[in-house]
Amino acid sequence: MENKELLVKDSCWMQNIQDTPIVLSTRVRLARNLAGASFPHILGAEGGKEVEKKISDTFGETVVSGEQFTYLSLGVLNPLERRILVEKHLISPDLANGKEFSGVALTDSHKVSVMVNEEDHLRIQVLMPGFNLSESLALAKETDEKMESKLDFAFKEKFGYLTACPTNVGTGLRISVMIHLPALVMTNQVQQVLGALTHIGLAVRGLYGEGSRALGNVFQISNQVTLGKSEEDTLAYLETMTGQIAERESQARQDLWKEVGVMLQDKVWRARGTLEHARLLSGDEVIGLLSEDRMGVEMGILPKVQAGFASLLVNSSYGCLQYRIDRPLDGNYADFERANYIRGVYHTKD
Amino acid sequence: MENKELLVKDSCWMQNIQDTPIVLSTRVRLARNLAGASFPHILGAEGGKEVEKKISDTFGETVVSGEQFTYLSLGVLNPLERRILVEKHLISPDLANGKEFSGVALTDSHKVSVMVNEEDHLRIQVLMPGFNLSESLALAKETDEKMESKLDFAFKEKFGYLTACPTNVGTGLRISVMIHLPALVMTNQVQQVLGALTHIGLAVRGLYGEGSRALGNVFQISNQVTLGKSEEDTLAYLETMTGQIAERESQARQDLWKEVGVMLQDKVWRARGTLEHARLLSGDEVIGLLSEDRMGVEMGILPKVQAGFASLLVNSSYGCLQYRIDRPLDGNYADFERANYIRGVYHTKD
Repeated sequence: MENKELLVKDSCWMQNIQDTPIVLSTRVRLARNLAGASFPHILGAEGGKEVEKKISDTFGETVVSGEQFTYLSLGVLNPLERRILVEKHLISPDLANGKEFSGVALTDSHKVSVMVNEEDHLRIQVLMPGFNLSESLALAKETDEKMESKLDFAFKEKFGYLTACPTNVGTGLRISVMIHLPALVMTNQVQQVLGALTHIGLAVRGLYGEGSRALGNVFQISNQVTLGKSEEDTLAYLETMTGQIAERESQARQDLWKEVGVMLQDKVWRARGTLEHARLLSGDEVIGLLSEDRMGVEMGILPKVQAGFASLLVNSSYGCLQYRIDRPLDGNYADFERANYIRGVYHTKD
Repeated sequence: MENKELLVKDSCWMQNIQDTPIVLSTRVRLARNLAGASFPHILGAEGGKEVEKKISDTFGETVVSGEQFTYLSLGVLNPLERRILVEKHLISPDLANGKEFSGVALTDSHKVSVMVNEEDHLRIQVLMPGFNLSESLALAKETDEKMESKLDFAFKEKFGYLTACPTNVGTGLRISVMIHLPALVMTNQVQQVLGALTHIGLAVRGLYGEGSRALGNVFQISNQVTLGKSEEDTLAYLETMTGQIAERESQARQDLWKEVGVMLQDKVWRARGTLEHARLLSGDEVIGLLSEDRMGVEMGILPKVQAGFASLLVNSSYGCLQYRIDRPLDGNYADFERANYIRGVYHTKD
């Protein structure tokens, strides 16, 4: 697959999964390091080059879930291509801004991505649409085992896998879900519901990770600690908590419907009207409108849209938009092209 | 024609006149009083009753432009029916709130309405769609002559027709146009353009007459003085000034199109989207949206709508809405029914 083709396509996790509303996607990540090499932040150029080569050489022979990897060294990616990978959650902003001798290996479906020389030598990541913890973990472990059969990972019996940051020591596992909570936001319950999570070992972030605002009422919830917990415990805990939050969101939607049904209909239909007809849409505005529209569809108020919420969110973000248009989008042009893109999806014949 | 049928129908002036954008309607009014009777404000009950009878008796035999009159005494009209007549500009708010022994005679098309015992014994009014001064004046004069053939009007050779308020003495003529100036409002030129008019003998008012705000960017422009001016002079003057203002509006639209074309398209298309889909529309909001939509249609940006701007403005106002629905519209219900009405017109199949 050509690099452009690989970058421009929708990632598997962006698919429209109608049977799991509220939970948009599931991510499982394993942190791994090579035995006998310093962690990336103290590795230096020579060591970095060596580690990158050692790891990237293995991708050619690795097949997971029937798919091969393409390895993209950061050096061959221009800033826009890096940005797209961030917008699709395939690499971290840190890797995008990062040093030489780092890169990412992607399967064609983007289900599995492996970052090389980010905070750890390897960050194996599985991204799936919907609420899909077991399958995601199984695929991450399959990838881990296949990599480990060719590489010697730093591991101590007492601690587990060694990692650059102590919070990842142990299983090196982080599980996160992306969850869409518009009704909890509208009813001012979201602080209370999500605030409680930080006291019980979970982290809450916005759509684009640490420090990012909760654009479009999308939140990422993940486990904080790995040491001393089994993979199964971590998974079961996150599964339970996510289920409870989704239930609260679902309840808040039913309450809104009962108490202010017409106002809710008005709100989501106005969002639909603007998406269908606007000629200029800023990035912030479109995310808010898409969030309302998605809730309207899930509640049966609005007709379905062909493209999924996650696909629309990502594809209307600046990098993806510019990459498809293939020229710089200054001033109003990004808002103009974003509105064009959205109108195309909403099949407006204006 | 039944009263309900007469009240609920669109008045002739509310028709969609595509060939005269900007100027929505033309109104010509003649103030007349009966010789030998006090002006209405000092007339008293006995005299009022007598004047009303004398005038209303003549309507049965009067035909103007092939149409007969129906006389509605204020006493037979409930508050909602009075309100509708005000919303359709067929009677003044003063008459609606007024005393016994007053009323209005209407032709079936509502082109001609004659108020009885308002400020003067008779207020003959002609309301036509578009920019239609000569025809309106001719019809007012035809009505005046037919009434005068049966009634003795107070007239002095030196002054002309005598009226309760000195500003109307002379021809008793007031000509006004309703003019839609969204581009002058958007470009902040409207104060300058209309402000100048008050220094040259013209009055500027909002959509519903004296003291009313310029809802929907609609203004009424009329002559102030009648004494010492011929009907033809008054007409020619207002015709020239109206033409100039319409030209300024037209120029402002072209400038907007050249300078901020996409933003303009965005604005009017968003208005269309909201009109098509909203479930709740307040009276103030709908007037603003209809104004933007109308400009978009006139500029060829938006597809045409079946109903005209004036018809939509009037029919979405509270009284007309409630009269059609035929039950009290409390709380959100008026906004709900207004949105239903508008969606019906915009043919949305939601």
